[in-house]
This record gives sequence, C-alpha cells and structure tokens, in this order.
Amino acid sequence: MSLTVDDKLKIAAKLDYLGIAYIEGGWPGSNPKDMEFFHRLGEIDLSTSKVTAFSATRKPGVTVSMDNNINAVLESGVKTATIFGKTWDFHVVKALETSLAENLNMVKDSVSYLTSQGLEVIFDAEHFFDGYKNNRDYALQVLEKAAQAGAICLVLCDTNGGTMPWETAAIVEDVRRNFHTPLGIHVHNDSGLAVANTLMAVRMGATHVQGTVNGYGERCGNVDLCTAIPNLELKMGLCTLPAGRLKRLTEVSRYISEIANMPHHNHQPYVGHGAFAHKGGIHVSAMLKDTLTYEHVNPEDVGNHRRVLVSELSGLSNLLYKAREFNIDVNAYDSETRKVIKQIKELENQGFQYEGAEASLELILRKAFSQFEEYFQLKNLKIILEKSEIEPTTSEAMVKIEVGQQVYHTAADGDGPVNALDNAMRKALNEVYPAINNMRLTDYKVRVLDGSEATAARVRVLIETTDGTDKWSTVGVSENIIEASFQALADSINYMLLKQHSL
Amino acid sequence: MSLTVDDKLKIAAKLDYLGIAYIEGGWPGSNPKDMEFFHRLGEIDLSTSKVTAFSATRKPGVTVSMDNNINAVLESGVKTATIFGKTWDFHVVKALETSLAENLNMVKDSVSYLTSQGLEVIFDAEHFFDGYKNNRDYALQVLEKAAQAGAICLVLCDTNGGTMPWETAAIVEDVRRNFHTPLGIHVHNDSGLAVANTLMAVRMGATHVQGTVNGYGERCGNVDLCTAIPNLELKMGLCTLPAGRLKRLTEVSRYISEIANMPHHNHQPYVGHGAFAHKGGIHVSAMLKDTLTYEHVNPEDVGNHRRVLVSELSGLSNLLYKAREFNIDVNAYDSETRKVIKQIKELENQGFQYEGAEASLELILRKAFSQFEEYFQLKNLKIILEKSEIEPTTSEAMVKIEVGQQVYHTAADGDGPVNALDNAMRKALNEVYPAINNMRLTDYKVRVLDGSEATAARVRVLIETTDGTDKWSTVGVSENIIEASFQALADSINYMLLKQHSL
Repeated sequence: MSLTVDDKLKIAAKLDYLGIAYIEGGWPGSNPKDMEFFHRLGEIDLSTSKVTAFSATRKPGVTVSMDNNINAVLESGVKTATIFGKTWDFHVVKALETSLAENLNMVKDSVSYLTSQGLEVIFDAEHFFDGYKNNRDYALQVLEKAAQAGAICLVLCDTNGGTMPWETAAIVEDVRRNFHTPLGIHVHNDSGLAVANTLMAVRMGATHVQGTVNGYGERCGNVDLCTAIPNLELKMGLCTLPAGRLKRLTEVSRYISEIANMPHHNHQPYVGHGAFAHKGGIHVSAMLKDTLTYEHVNPEDVGNHRRVLVSELSGLSNLLYKAREFNIDVNAYDSETRKVIKQIKELENQGFQYEGAEASLELILRKAFSQFEEYFQLKNLKIILEKSEIEPTTSEAMVKIEVGQQVYHTAADGDGPVNALDNAMRKALNEVYPAINNMRLTDYKVRVLDGSEATAARVRVLIETTDGTDKWSTVGVSENIIEASFQALADSINYMLLKQHSL
Repeated sequence: MSLTVDDKLKIAAKLDYLGIAYIEGGWPGSNPKDMEFFHRLGEIDLSTSKVTAFSATRKPGVTVSMDNNINAVLESGVKTATIFGKTWDFHVVKALETSLAENLNMVKDSVSYLTSQGLEVIFDAEHFFDGYKNNRDYALQVLEKAAQAGAICLVLCDTNGGTMPWETAAIVEDVRRNFHTPLGIHVHNDSGLAVANTLMAVRMGATHVQGTVNGYGERCGNVDLCTAIPNLELKMGLCTLPAGRLKRLTEVSRYISEIANMPHHNHQPYVGHGAFAHKGGIHVSAMLKDTLTYEHVNPEDVGNHRRVLVSELSGLSNLLYKAREFNIDVNAYDSETRKVIKQIKELENQGFQYEGAEASLELILRKAFSQFEEYFQLKNLKIILEKSEIEPTTSEAMVKIEVGQQVYHTAADGDGPVNALDNAMRKALNEVYPAINNMRLTDYKVRVLDGSEATAARVRVLIETTDGTDKWSTVGVSENIIEASFQALADSINYMLLKQHSL
C-alpha cells in the first residue's frame, strides 16, 4: 500500500473521528514523506487521538543523541514515540549482528533519551513471543530495561505471526506477573489467529492493543481493529472507544479502504457488506421471526446493516438523517421518499457508493424533491486517442453541450481521455457559467469493481473537486471508464452550480 | 458463489488429491443440481475422500421414511450422510415452531433410520454453542439422542460465529467428559475467530474438523481449511492429511478459487501470494542471513514460496535475490547490473511498482541481459469513444502491429477503451501467435498516483493474466490511462510468449 501525505492526513482525521487513542503516523527517520506527515499535522484537528512517531532503537555502537532515527523522532515534533527493540536473542545476533549486552543498552538509551526530552515512549518488543520461547530470561531483561528507562507501555509483539492463542495467554500471564508497567499486544495474522491472540492477551491483562484498520499490513496483515474492537466491546464488555463511537466503525473501515484504494472485503467480520447478509430460505424465514436466530450481534451496533431485510426502516432512517444534514425537508410517509430509497438501493446494487460521494447523493435527493434540475445537457461527446510507434498517446475530446436554447460545441486536448473530457466540458461551459473557472479537481480515483472480469468489469470513479473554499465528492459507475468519469464530472459541475445559485 | 456440476466434480477431485477425508457434496433434497452431482460421481476417481450428502432432520410431524429430504439422501447413493438438527431450544420454538420433545424425536428418527439403511451418519448439532449457553441440558439431550441413534460423530456447530475461543474450549471440554462418541467442530467466522475456535476444540478433544477451502461460506465464511490444516499439522503436530500432501495445499487453494471464479486473497495465511512476501531493507537483509528471522514456517511446507518485493526502499540485495528466483545469473559487480538497477530506480520514481508485477520485472532483467526481445511492434493505435444524449459510450480500437515483416491491421469493439484495445490486440496477434487465445485477463487495477493533480495525474495500471495454469502480473505507468494499459498488456503478451518459447 502506498499513501500520499494527503491520504495519510485524511486517514488520521478519520481515526480521530472513530476515537482511536494513538495513531502511529510513520517512521520519520526512514523517508521524507513520513516526516512531511508530522510537519503537516497542524492542518487537521485531532480531538481524541495522540500521534506517535515510529523508530528503531539507536544503532549498535552509536551514541543515542547522534542517532539519525532517534533524532528524526524529536524533529517530528510528536509528544509520544513508539520505539521497537529486539527481544529475540537469535535476532540480535543474526540480524542486528551485535551482542546481547549492547542490545540491552540500545533499548535503555533510546527509551531514556526520548523520555528525558519530554516524550512518552511506548516500547514495542519485537518478536517477543519467539524470543520468550527461545530465551525467556533475555526477553524479560529487554522489557525490564525499557520499563526502567521509563517506557509507559511494554508492547509484546508477535512479529512473525506464528504464536498459538494458548501460548499467547500463558506468556502474557507470565509477563503480567513480573511487571507493573501496562502491557500492550501487537500481532500479525500469519496463522489466521491475530484476533484470537489479541483477545487472549487482553484477557490476561494487556490494556493496549495495536492493529490496523481492515488488518492492512505486510504478508498476512496485522490484527484487524475492525474485528478486534467489536469483540472487545460487544463480547468482552470492555471500553476501547469513547461512548457511542462504535457505530462509526463500518463507515471508517470503508472510508479508509477507499482512500487506500484497496477493495473492501465483502466477508470481513462486522464491517463487510456481506457480514450480515442472509440468503438461504431457512435463514431468511427464521430471521423474519427473530434476528437473533442467525445474528451474533446487532449490525447497527457497529454501524453496519442487515442485508436481507434491507428494510425500508434502516434505509429510511439513514435517508432521513442524511436529508436533515442537507436541509431537505423529507416526510417519512411520502411516496416520493419510498421511491428515492428504492432508486438509491438500485444504484448501490450497480456499484455506486455514496459514503465517499455525498454531493452525488445530495443531487439525487434534491432532484427527487424537485429542488434541482440539471444545468446543462450533453448532446454528444467523442474522444479520440492515438498512438504511433514513435509517439506517446495523444487524447482529444469534442463535446456538444446544450444550455437552454444555446448549443456549445468545442474541443480540447488532455493528458488522457478523462483530462481531455474535463478540459472540453469546462471550455464549453465557461461562457455561460464563468464560475466554472474556480473549480479544480483535487482527486480522481478509479476502482475496478469486479476484478475477475478484468477490463470488461465495472469501474467506479470518485472525483473530488474544490472551488477554493469548499470541497465535494461525486461518483460515477459504468463498464466504461469514460462513461463513469463523465457521470462524476457532470455531477461535480452541477453541484457547484447548484451551490452557487442557492447562495 | 454458484458452481456448475462440472465445477463441483473438478473440486471434489482436487479435494481428493489433497487428501480430505470427507467431502460434503450438497443437499440432494434441496435442488436437482445437487442431486445430479451425486449421480455423476462415477465420472471421477476418488482414492482418499468419502462423499457425504447433507440434509436436515425429518420435518416435524412427518414419518421419517416419508420425509423428502431424508429419502433424497438415500436416492443420492452415498454411504455417509451429514444430518443437521437443532440444539438451541430457542430455535426449535422460534424457527422450527415445534416442541422440544418433537425435535428430539426428529433427531433420533433421522439418524436411526439412515443408520438402519446401512449409512454412516455424521450429526451436525446446529447452533450448539448458543444452545448450550441458553439451555445446557437440552443441548446435551439432543447430542445424546443422536449418539444413541448411532451417529458416528457429533459435530458441535457455532452457526452464528459469535463464540469466543475460551468458551469453545470450556464447552467442548464439558461435552467431551459426557460423551464417548467422537466429536467434531464446525465454526463460522463472524467474529474473526473461526481458526482459533477450531484449534481450541481440537485441543479439547474434537477429532473431526469441518470447514471450506479458502473459508468460502455465508456472511463471513466458514473456517478456512487452508489456515486450519497447516496450523493443526505444523503448529500442533497432528495428522490431518495423508503424508506428503500438505505441500499441495497452496495449489489446491488457488485452483479452487479459479474454478469458483473468486479472487485469491493476496494476504491469506499460508497460501496467499503475499503470505511470505518480504519488503523493506531491514527484513530482506535479515532474511538473506536466515529465513527464520521473519518466517514462522517454511513456505515450501505448504507448497507456497518466499517472495522478495523489490522496492525503492531496498536495492541491490533485493535484486540479486529476485534474479536468483528467475534463474538469471547476475553478478553484483557487473556494469550491466548497475545499469539495470539504475533503470529500475528511475522507473520506480516514475511510479512503476514491481511488487505486484513480477512479470514486467522479469522482462526488464532478461532484456538487460539479452535474454529477451519483444515479440511484436506496435505501429499505430487509435481508439474512438462516442456518447450521445441518448446512447451510452461506445468504444472502438484500431491497431496496426508488426511481427517480423508482416503487418496486422485490425479493429475491435469493447466495453471500454481498454477492453476494446485488449480485444483488438488479441485479434491482430492471434494469427501468428495462436497461444494468445489461452490468455485471459483476471484482474485489472488502476491507481491514480498523485490525486492532487486529479485527471492530469499519473496513472498506474496493474494487469493480472492467466493461461489456465500460471498467473502473472504486469504494470504500466503514464499520464494517459490508455498508454499505461497498453504497456501492461504488451508486457503480459510478451511474457506469455517468452514463457512458451522457453519451454
């Protein structure tokens, strides 16, 4: 996964909205992009989350105050650092190629130096479970060094993801008996046991859980917080988020998968589109009698919803909520309301998604209640792409657009077919709607909806536009990327003109 | 998921090849397609697997010998039946709408009737864990009826997937103390704990595990046997498959995902393409010293292999590793080596990424060491997209391609510009390279590299192709999506032809 700094800032804001306690923002010593994230943190408001910077302990044989990684943490300006150190003797010797004693010093120096600079330090004990099994004494010595040096939390990491849940339980219990410092757990999913290992550690006393939204991470991923959090809250009765925030989980999970441009897994526990979908006749008839028959929790508790009963009720309450947000007066018992709910459901079945495209949703609602009519009609468009042996592809778009009785017919080049289309549409419309010159696309995302049909699959295009003060997002879906892009562009232009005319 | 009978026969043969003990082939009473599967079983040779037919217990108030579902099991001709019955009192009353006593009779009658007809019967205790928690006595009475009636195995089912691993352990342990009949476990993944619950049950004495390849199943799926089996074998030292068969696991997992036309998850434990993928300089340099440093098991044990992801973070050591993997003899001190590393770095700066596109990387390396020349030259391509007020966008591509002295000039339609281009290129090349007809794109991904420049930004296209046995990925990058798609398509075709000619 590769994220731009803008993407990372958006994700950080969303994690704060969910109520995550700590956001690990990157490794400022490893590359300038990670450092830029920390320097631009002022651009977003965080009310719940603290941001931490990641780093290894100082290098062997280097004075801690001279270590580049450690200094980069200080430069990043964070108040909390997450420092990882080796706890597996084999790794110290094989990978770091240093002595067991020097590794202890590296841990001690790194934690105490950052603490002395006023930072709180979370210590990630890398490969702790493998280390413990190979040499318990040494692994515990490393933790002791970190604790003595002032670490506020000792995080036991199953870095290779090979630990069994009963081993996790026994090892965490042993550590718990030996330390007063709060314990954390950080596990990978290489054995498909990341969630179980996390819960086991918490049962044995860990109070800090590290993971990622949707389980993103190397190899088989980290523990998926979207599964761990509801288990901790709903099954174990623990408090992990501020009150009322669990309902935001599904929205956050899908938002982050959109930003990361990763497919959202249909079968993902709790937050997947199919997590509460009921198909079989037996299931459905039982479900109609009592939802408890085939549901282990209430989908609304995590902000998801049941899919058989795609009940008018759940659709309706969402819609009423949304309409209120847009200041549209909607009556729940109106036939227009029923009709627009049905229309939105059909569009969603085709692959439209309005979670990341509220401007498109607002247009649908305003249109349904006769508060909006399109500002222009496309009569015709043609795009020609050409490439020869020696020349790269050129793109040219021609559009014929009607506004009232007037026809605007023009053409433009672009860096690609969509860019040419965008340029031609602006050129055609700017005479009658000069405000269009203030519009600027700020993001353009393409998602292939069904990979298995390859280039003939449906494509979802998400566009983000700004006029300098506001920002809005629109969506288009089609088997043809140009058609989908046109839909999203047209929505974006209409939305801006609507906003402008209602001022 | 919907499978044809042919698909199901292929899958059954593959499960036998893996060495699965029992294959549940379908519910013959529910539809004719499932019955056809049983009647056509003679078409495949099964040397290890027994096939079972699935059915509910007889209906309330019906004589068992008159029950359609039960009779369908007999008609199917299997020697083993899997009969599921209710064990949750709430479900008996709410969903079945019958009495607790009648449900006990339904279980007893169904199991004893099939046993009397010479079948072995596996009893699936539906909702056992929820039933046990709600009314332990009744849940155990149901098991007792099934055991007394001759069931060879009592399978405890977590049908709603909401049970925690410690609950599974305690409940299985209690059942174990009360029954001599072998126990089984059947769990769903709604809490992300299916694998853990399966292992816990086995630790507490279950000897029969039900699950699906790749975890396919309703909602969040059943337990993934591709994760459970290696955990049972490699972590718990148990024997689940005939000796030597575990190495076939990755192949079987991917084959079945192909047949089922489901994407194979990159991050799937043990069998995913990315399950043993390593990125980042620290990991890779440690891996070169000892693979144990970042691997919990040997990937070859499950038929998977290690992958080192080449990325700008790492450099020469990654490339040498990669070249070794491709069987290309590369000298670290060679000037050609330096040149190709520089070339890859430049391409990566432009946005190319070879982590997901190893075939493109292999072409670059082989070209650098004079082991590959392109199989065709594009002379010219033109794509025309048109949309009118009343018609959706149409796409047409024309290509002129040269192979040797011969020029192939043709045109094709498509669902979008890339699909049209793909169709036209195949049409142009299939006369001279008929093998191209076996090629099929299985995935097409588009990523906009710098969102802030919107439609004028660079686009990275990743294409995945199969020829039915192998799968490879290629990449293209450009400001023009068509140019990027052409690059990836051309690489994919070249790669296939290279592979074919080196056979």
